[in-house]
Amino acid sequence: MSVIARRVHLAQRPIDLPDGSTWSVRDSELESPVDGEVLVKVTHLSLDPAMRGWLNDVRSYVPPVAIDAVMRASGVGTVLESRHPDFNVGDSVTGLTGIADHAVLRGEHLTHIDLSVAEPATWLGALGMPGMTAWFGLFDVAAAKAGETVVVSGAAGAVGSVVGQLAKARGCHVIGIAGGPDKCAWLTDELGFDAAIDYKQGPVHRGLRDMAPDGIDVYFDNVGGEMLDSALRALRLGARIAICGAISTYNATEPVPGPAHYMSLLVNRATMSGFLVFDYEDRYAEAVDGITALMADGSLVAREQVVQGHVDDFGDTLLMLFSGANTGKLVLALQ
Amino acid sequence: MSVIARRVHLAQRPIDLPDGSTWSVRDSELESPVDGEVLVKVTHLSLDPAMRGWLNDVRSYVPPVAIDAVMRASGVGTVLESRHPDFNVGDSVTGLTGIADHAVLRGEHLTHIDLSVAEPATWLGALGMPGMTAWFGLFDVAAAKAGETVVVSGAAGAVGSVVGQLAKARGCHVIGIAGGPDKCAWLTDELGFDAAIDYKQGPVHRGLRDMAPDGIDVYFDNVGGEMLDSALRALRLGARIAICGAISTYNATEPVPGPAHYMSLLVNRATMSGFLVFDYEDRYAEAVDGITALMADGSLVAREQVVQGHVDDFGDTLLMLFSGANTGKLVLALQ
Repeated sequence: MSVIARRVHLAQRPIDLPDGSTWSVRDSELESPVDGEVLVKVTHLSLDPAMRGWLNDVRSYVPPVAIDAVMRASGVGTVLESRHPDFNVGDSVTGLTGIADHAVLRGEHLTHIDLSVAEPATWLGALGMPGMTAWFGLFDVAAAKAGETVVVSGAAGAVGSVVGQLAKARGCHVIGIAGGPDKCAWLTDELGFDAAIDYKQGPVHRGLRDMAPDGIDVYFDNVGGEMLDSALRALRLGARIAICGAISTYNATEPVPGPAHYMSLLVNRATMSGFLVFDYEDRYAEAVDGITALMADGSLVAREQVVQGHVDDFGDTLLMLFSGANTGKLVLALQ
Repeated sequence: MSVIARRVHLAQRPIDLPDGSTWSVRDSELESPVDGEVLVKVTHLSLDPAMRGWLNDVRSYVPPVAIDAVMRASGVGTVLESRHPDFNVGDSVTGLTGIADHAVLRGEHLTHIDLSVAEPATWLGALGMPGMTAWFGLFDVAAAKAGETVVVSGAAGAVGSVVGQLAKARGCHVIGIAGGPDKCAWLTDELGFDAAIDYKQGPVHRGLRDMAPDGIDVYFDNVGGEMLDSALRALRLGARIAICGAISTYNATEPVPGPAHYMSLLVNRATMSGFLVFDYEDRYAEAVDGITALMADGSLVAREQVVQGHVDDFGDTLLMLFSGANTGKLVLALQ
């Protein structure tokens, strides 16, 4: 079987926010799968803050997306044709499909998903990379323990919303930082956070002083910039900061100042660690089991913002991440 | 016995570098020791970069020195009178004597030292707080292992010179950062460092690129500021940064920028931890034994810069730390 795939290529590197000139949408005939390969019809695409970093021509944890290459992305889809023994036509799978409506991938780069456990979009959110990131960042990197005060930034996002709920389930006192009263109300009223700080309403360091007068034990950072600096000022003795991302800085065109209060690490004998979820790949099953169990007993709500559209809508939809327009995991469902 | 002690008090808090108006030297009659106390004749005073921080009226790991209080300092001396069962007249001891030629201290705040093992000044350097700081910072906080590349800033200072030699003894590749050709030559020629970078000769990040083209595993930071930022740019996967101090920033009158390249922690899954030597107090004996053994077999050279003088010379001598005038541990020996 040969198919025409509609795909989004990187046309040129953006200076600040990506725009129409960043992308080029093209139809290409895919080669039929050879031995070991699988043809997937993509139904759902994951839109991630990290995508912005992949567009810059700098050394990072993965190579930048090359000019003219198909934009890197995780997706969920259905097997149309398989030449790999582990996959059958009709199977539901997830993997790095790229921004495309069809993709040919090697079987070892695909994972089966069980749609009786959760919707496709959830397999890109709470049960996908964001959920894995939350689990290992909170429990392994930050080593959050019952009774501790945990603060998470980007708390209404795909990772942050899971971090806060996992911390609650572990018995922590949880404070989320998010933008706007609706997101903050969602955190406390729907997700069970103990408190929320609206960073649009005033300085975060004041919010932390009010909400966590005794300081914080764990800060899970998705935002970077000034918010990280505010958290540094609020650390308790022995605090741990897990650096997951820095969405506030990804579109910066000027050098971004570093966290001026980093010497709080010394005063408080605290630790700040960066991590990447890919390093925990051989333990994903542990996190999927843990999160599935919490979803089943109602103590964890997986939320996705699913935009219905076509691969052509990728560029515009991606911008929602940087304007703060999404709540929960942002997914583009292909119609 | 009652004695007149000559002591240096904090007269007012300095804005940038301390000067004559910072200090007030006074003679005071000391009360005779009561039960549990010991009268010490101070012979050697420790001058430390951390002293600058104790002068600022900010929350830190110890309270600031109060206006009018005797300046906090470690010292070595001889017991003149004892009302504590563990100490006899003539014993050599170390403790927080303050900048004074005599002090009355509680016995539990004093430690015996053995002058047959090392000179008094060494008990304030390689066998004192600086040596303890080097040992636990390098081996516990940064967990340096044989074969790794270790970079230390302030490498010709009291802590840095011990860090580098401990790392060499452990089988690491060691690069020191120091100011000026003499200090750099001392590091490589006398102390056995593999390389030295003179920060006065050019940007440290270029020096690191040349001397450690494959990156660094451990950075032991005494300096902060731009030097920390340069080290962040050079991290290898899994690197550890131990934050010991930030002498480049202690006299700043403007806000000091944070380390702009902190996201290197994420890219390299690296960790930056602050620590304080006091937290390792119950393990000092382990470090003293380890460092003494290395001194005995010649693989560790303890160096002190001993200034002969009086307590009145404290203010001027302290400034040597901030002008980079000293090599090794700076000690004021009282005549």
